[in-house]
Amino acid sequence: MEVSYPACSPSEGGGGGSDEPTIRLLVSSTEMNGAGNLMDFLDEPFPDVGTYEDFHTIDWLREKSRDTDRHRKITSKSKESMWELIKSLLDAWSGWVVMLLIGLLSGTLAGVIDLAVDWMTDLKEGVCLSAFWYSHEQCCWTSNETTFDDRDKCPQWQTWAELMTGHAEGGGAYVLNYFLYVLWALLFSFLAVSLVRVFAPYACGSGIPEIKTILSGFIIRGYLGKWTLLIKTVTLVLAVSSGLSLGKEGPLVHVACCCGNLFCSLFSKYSKNEGKRREVLSAAAAAGVSVAFGAPIGGVLFSLEEVSYYFPLKTLWRSFFAALVAAFTLRAINPFGNSRLVLFYVEYHTPWYMAELVPFILLGVFGGLWGTLFIRANIAWCRRRKTTQLGKYPVLEVIAVTAITAVLAFPNPYTRRSTSELISELFNDCGALESSQLCDYVNNPNMSRPVDDIPDRPAGPGVYNALWQLALALVFKIVITIFTFGMKIPSGLFIPSMAVGAIAGRIVGIAVEQMAYHHHDWIIFKNWCRPGADCVTPGLYAMVGAAACLGGVTRMTVSLVVIMFELTGGLEYIVPLMAAAVTSKWVADAFGKEGIYESHIQLNGYPYLDVRDEFTHRTLATDVMRPRRNDPPLAVLTQDSTTVEDAEALIKDTDYSGFPVVVSRESERLIGFVQRRDLTLAIKTARQKQDGVVSSSMVYFTEDAQQLPASDPQPLKLRRILNLSPFTVTDHTPMETVVDIFRKLGLRQCLVTRKGRPATHGSDDEPGPGVHHVQLDPSRVHSTSQTVSKGTGSRPAGSLWTRMKL
Amino acid sequence: MEVSYPACSPSEGGGGGSDEPTIRLLVSSTEMNGAGNLMDFLDEPFPDVGTYEDFHTIDWLREKSRDTDRHRKITSKSKESMWELIKSLLDAWSGWVVMLLIGLLSGTLAGVIDLAVDWMTDLKEGVCLSAFWYSHEQCCWTSNETTFDDRDKCPQWQTWAELMTGHAEGGGAYVLNYFLYVLWALLFSFLAVSLVRVFAPYACGSGIPEIKTILSGFIIRGYLGKWTLLIKTVTLVLAVSSGLSLGKEGPLVHVACCCGNLFCSLFSKYSKNEGKRREVLSAAAAAGVSVAFGAPIGGVLFSLEEVSYYFPLKTLWRSFFAALVAAFTLRAINPFGNSRLVLFYVEYHTPWYMAELVPFILLGVFGGLWGTLFIRANIAWCRRRKTTQLGKYPVLEVIAVTAITAVLAFPNPYTRRSTSELISELFNDCGALESSQLCDYVNNPNMSRPVDDIPDRPAGPGVYNALWQLALALVFKIVITIFTFGMKIPSGLFIPSMAVGAIAGRIVGIAVEQMAYHHHDWIIFKNWCRPGADCVTPGLYAMVGAAACLGGVTRMTVSLVVIMFELTGGLEYIVPLMAAAVTSKWVADAFGKEGIYESHIQLNGYPYLDVRDEFTHRTLATDVMRPRRNDPPLAVLTQDSTTVEDAEALIKDTDYSGFPVVVSRESERLIGFVQRRDLTLAIKTARQKQDGVVSSSMVYFTEDAQQLPASDPQPLKLRRILNLSPFTVTDHTPMETVVDIFRKLGLRQCLVTRKGRPATHGSDDEPGPGVHHVQLDPSRVHSTSQTVSKGTGSRPAGSLWTRMKL
Repeated sequence: MEVSYPACSPSEGGGGGSDEPTIRLLVSSTEMNGAGNLMDFLDEPFPDVGTYEDFHTIDWLREKSRDTDRHRKITSKSKESMWELIKSLLDAWSGWVVMLLIGLLSGTLAGVIDLAVDWMTDLKEGVCLSAFWYSHEQCCWTSNETTFDDRDKCPQWQTWAELMTGHAEGGGAYVLNYFLYVLWALLFSFLAVSLVRVFAPYACGSGIPEIKTILSGFIIRGYLGKWTLLIKTVTLVLAVSSGLSLGKEGPLVHVACCCGNLFCSLFSKYSKNEGKRREVLSAAAAAGVSVAFGAPIGGVLFSLEEVSYYFPLKTLWRSFFAALVAAFTLRAINPFGNSRLVLFYVEYHTPWYMAELVPFILLGVFGGLWGTLFIRANIAWCRRRKTTQLGKYPVLEVIAVTAITAVLAFPNPYTRRSTSELISELFNDCGALESSQLCDYVNNPNMSRPVDDIPDRPAGPGVYNALWQLALALVFKIVITIFTFGMKIPSGLFIPSMAVGAIAGRIVGIAVEQMAYHHHDWIIFKNWCRPGADCVTPGLYAMVGAAACLGGVTRMTVSLVVIMFELTGGLEYIVPLMAAAVTSKWVADAFGKEGIYESHIQLNGYPYLDVRDEFTHRTLATDVMRPRRNDPPLAVLTQDSTTVEDAEALIKDTDYSGFPVVVSRESERLIGFVQRRDLTLAIKTARQKQDGVVSSSMVYFTEDAQQLPASDPQPLKLRRILNLSPFTVTDHTPMETVVDIFRKLGLRQCLVTRKGRPATHGSDDEPGPGVHHVQLDPSRVHSTSQTVSKGTGSRPAGSLWTRMKL
Repeated sequence: MEVSYPACSPSEGGGGGSDEPTIRLLVSSTEMNGAGNLMDFLDEPFPDVGTYEDFHTIDWLREKSRDTDRHRKITSKSKESMWELIKSLLDAWSGWVVMLLIGLLSGTLAGVIDLAVDWMTDLKEGVCLSAFWYSHEQCCWTSNETTFDDRDKCPQWQTWAELMTGHAEGGGAYVLNYFLYVLWALLFSFLAVSLVRVFAPYACGSGIPEIKTILSGFIIRGYLGKWTLLIKTVTLVLAVSSGLSLGKEGPLVHVACCCGNLFCSLFSKYSKNEGKRREVLSAAAAAGVSVAFGAPIGGVLFSLEEVSYYFPLKTLWRSFFAALVAAFTLRAINPFGNSRLVLFYVEYHTPWYMAELVPFILLGVFGGLWGTLFIRANIAWCRRRKTTQLGKYPVLEVIAVTAITAVLAFPNPYTRRSTSELISELFNDCGALESSQLCDYVNNPNMSRPVDDIPDRPAGPGVYNALWQLALALVFKIVITIFTFGMKIPSGLFIPSMAVGAIAGRIVGIAVEQMAYHHHDWIIFKNWCRPGADCVTPGLYAMVGAAACLGGVTRMTVSLVVIMFELTGGLEYIVPLMAAAVTSKWVADAFGKEGIYESHIQLNGYPYLDVRDEFTHRTLATDVMRPRRNDPPLAVLTQDSTTVEDAEALIKDTDYSGFPVVVSRESERLIGFVQRRDLTLAIKTARQKQDGVVSSSMVYFTEDAQQLPASDPQPLKLRRILNLSPFTVTDHTPMETVVDIFRKLGLRQCLVTRKGRPATHGSDDEPGPGVHHVQLDPSRVHSTSQTVSKGTGSRPAGSLWTRMKL
């Protein structure tokens, strides 16, 4: 469970930590080869056989089969005694218990993070005298001031300048506040990056690309460990508080998945089965989004749409449960002090009109363009970080970016505050009591409407001032986010993306509103915007813009709209949101199919088989299978004529991840497939523990060993590590079918068979009939796989594919 | 597109209609055998080759592969000219167009159905004098009466007795109204059942079991045809209006799927590919639920959770779009007159308390028991209908049930009105203005609270009266629903189930409320229910009960909770709903895993491979594959030594749905697999169109035919109908893996290979090595499949499995 790699992406290599594997599986041959009724020849199972190495991919089919065996065993035992029945019931309930625990812990952590971020963000500007652990809002909550504006300036809360010099206003105070703001920001970010560097390198980044990869079956030890959980939680608070352009939403998904992994270890059902563990992690991801936005349904759909690979119905139901528990735990903690579940609670009072779809769609186009720009620029920058000197100074980089961010952010009130507060303000409709600059409209003194139905009014100087500041904030956010995402601190992308969209949206919204007010006789406004009516809600534009930008970057669709729907709580505004999300996705897809997470997966070289990849050329398995014609001859094991020495030589000379077992080199009938890791472990264990196994011992994969003369060394029987049902396809199978099979069944490798013609091996123009080995083990990018030919001819070995790049 | 079978379930057989196949596919060999680079030997493609017969299952892998080919062709062509580019863009957009059309049409139909049902339900009681096409509510809408109660009795609306005799009150008027109520009910139901009988037998039932089966890949011609659409829409109105204990929700899903099928025929992309067509149908099902409840997100989840088989992400997004369009179309029509999207709009003002979870969970238990009782009783009754004389008189049955329903329903005000109105009233919280009997509480004259915060009050005589009537209504609904569901009229199950739950819930709710009022010093109430507080909302209990009962019957989970969440519009009440839904599912699952839809699928013998089926015994492919040892010898085709006569004899003598093609009877190397239907069609066409093809012609499946002497008859080249990539598994593959593969890849059949040992064929205790044929074509329950042995020994043929009953 310790951290073993110091960098976010394993390809960056290096680093300390223990190498202890997170998961150790002891499996019997029944579980191993999927052929339970066969006799076992070894007295005890080899330790670690059936486990996976770090940075390898699991075999979903095998994991599923093992779980079925386990379940079957428990069910049949449950009839034996009361105690076994109780045990089987406990086993059946353990899934729900894990979900409950995940919900409780991730909800609690999210609440704690929210509270800590609130306090530390305000700490950059000042301190509460009555209780230093109060945030600005909490500090002034009990104040006697009546208006919101006055309450903001309650005497208990003092800025640093006020506290030190006694002057709240003036140039000196401003400079002092400025200086301390930058200093606190630098301190927070330095702490964050140092903690990540020293204790948990995996805690950096958003974590979503890695979690996608892990959920697809890859193993990254320690990525979801306790240590990562602790450090990510702490550094996330520091990073967000430092005022960098990053959010806590993505990292919260990572934190929730760490919780999921933690609780998996309580139950052997989950800790010993990598497939079942991933079901729990999918649910944990849903809980993470649920607490990030306070949107449980959106969280489940996010997990389904964006991160999960294998999502059976059972998981849907459990994810929903975990997401709800998490959301209600968070609400019980009530970090926002408003009893609301959602992060940005908004309530609009005006319907939208058909004509407004035009600006909404334009915002969608903007979102798509921003998505494309961001992905391209960010990936280019991250690639530069990986390949140049830059990557060697992560602490310095964080310090530099923080300094720039803090120095540029302080003068502008819209960038000085935390990004979530900014979004919150931009989403809000201007009520009568609103004190924000953005709501500085010219009021008609005769106005006697109720609070929530204020007609459109001309903008006052505050609004125009705000527009300028917002425009500057927009440019600043766009540029700085590109450089921030990917640094060695926890950094989410949702909030910065939404901020960019919300700013753009609010600007457009105010423009449309003023246009409608001043030109309500124009034909486009005539029908729906009479003078004195409340026809345009700039806050809605901000929300639509936020959805568009988030959609452009992540390519989320349904989950995005549902999250936004949960924020507003009404179906009323779903059409504008959907129009913007669809437009944004289409525009962004026109420039490149991959979202930011897929791009980062690709950048880091993670093995991930995307369903959405398409094959533009028609390819058959025969075109891509290895070996090619001139490749070296094939490495196979025979069922009863290989010695331990031979097998060891094979392991040493090649780096294939597994070897086909054939009847004999002449007939080359395929019996099964043996994993390299299992073979290595089995031989090692046998040499240590089994007397008489020496280099010249025969290795048997058959059911019954032949009677050997007593003089011969004791044979090694390995049928238990043999997979008797390797997956095969014919060489005429189209590649998209092969990929579909890999994807849907979660295979690690597949054998290609060629049959039906008289043997033509050796002939120049026709490859002979045979079993070829098509391996798609995405975990070993540079290794090679191999081939067994079936029938009379033997085929040469070939290399492994990764990512099915054809 | 015509109706070809007169009964709901094909197993009931018989009947007229044309036999014209709905879909005709012309596919080239490239598309057929998944091996595009091979030469074609026939001058023109055979018509119908590659299509499916009625009541057969499609091959998902083949459909997918064909669609990829089509897409690839369009993409490569699009670079050639502007026109081709436009065509490719249109093709890409056609999916969205279809969704838009489905949304518009199904929303419109749902609106029309709602309006018509409203009017016709009221027609049973009276008529609007000012405009006879107005329903009671519409008629009195413009009335001047102020209270709801008075408005209900507006002078424009007259009961039949009032109209005929001039007396609205009195025994005579009551009897006359009673008589006319029954008469109208009988008329409506007679019309409904007659229309179904005569014009569209497939229009009966809820349609969801059949749609589940169709979506899983089965073909039932005409089930989603235009004629079914029309008749189902009309008879649904009649059936619901007749006052029978049935709902319109399930049938609306069927109607929406018919719309989907209709619009598929506009685009060859969907009409010519059964796989793509099913993606559209999945989305249509979502639109159906969306309009049934006004819950678009719930609809999408319903489609995902309950009905769909193959649900890629693209479909998720499109379903959501279709569901939204449908919901907004319905809202534009505004059939409920309240601008609300949802069927039962409720707003509660009181939070719920932890202690209330006990009654909520009890309601869950009730729901589970009701679900079990209903499923068992209904299935038993339906089986009796199928097997006895009863099934021969569907019209009489409907008339009889309608008569009983109407006679028993009229005296009780809670059963006289339509079930949706009843549920609506039960869900509602009692406001100050409520005139319902259920809200007849003893008011404190000093009460000066606002309208929506009324404290708990003692129940008045009206409430006690209502409780008795509700109890009677509960018993009546429980019994009559069992006999109603499954009759030969459109009948949904959601509304009756919800009614049962809502009645039970309301009764429990009132009981808890009164207990809390009268005994607020009891320890369980002390903490949260002070005198004068509004602590119990009986309407919420009704809603929880409705969710529990619906969950017990259908075993929906997430979609159920989300639909209910959309009705209330707040996350506040999601925990009670979830607690009840989970309890109900667990209780019901303890008595039997299958929901009502799965039970009906099984009852009707539809081929449906449920993911949730578990294997309790460990079985390998070798244990279930055919042939068994003493089965007759195997029917295979050889690649170049079969004559047309031989092939015809094979087709005639066997009823396997396909034949393996081998190199020769001696070597028995497998080349591929040929579908019976394709072979039959190919030979028939060749005999008609190709000169020189006679009985003694050779059939070639090879790439190049041998040069034959000129005297020999012309050979028939059939490589184009040969599937060169048949799916194989080894005989050691565990059955759950095989089923998983069938399920995930949507296969029709699979070959079993046995290799790796010296040939032992003929030996008694060991089956020889070979390729065995495991066929899982669920569409042909009574036919048999067969086996080819591979290697040197030939294995006997065996029978096909269905439903994987081992």
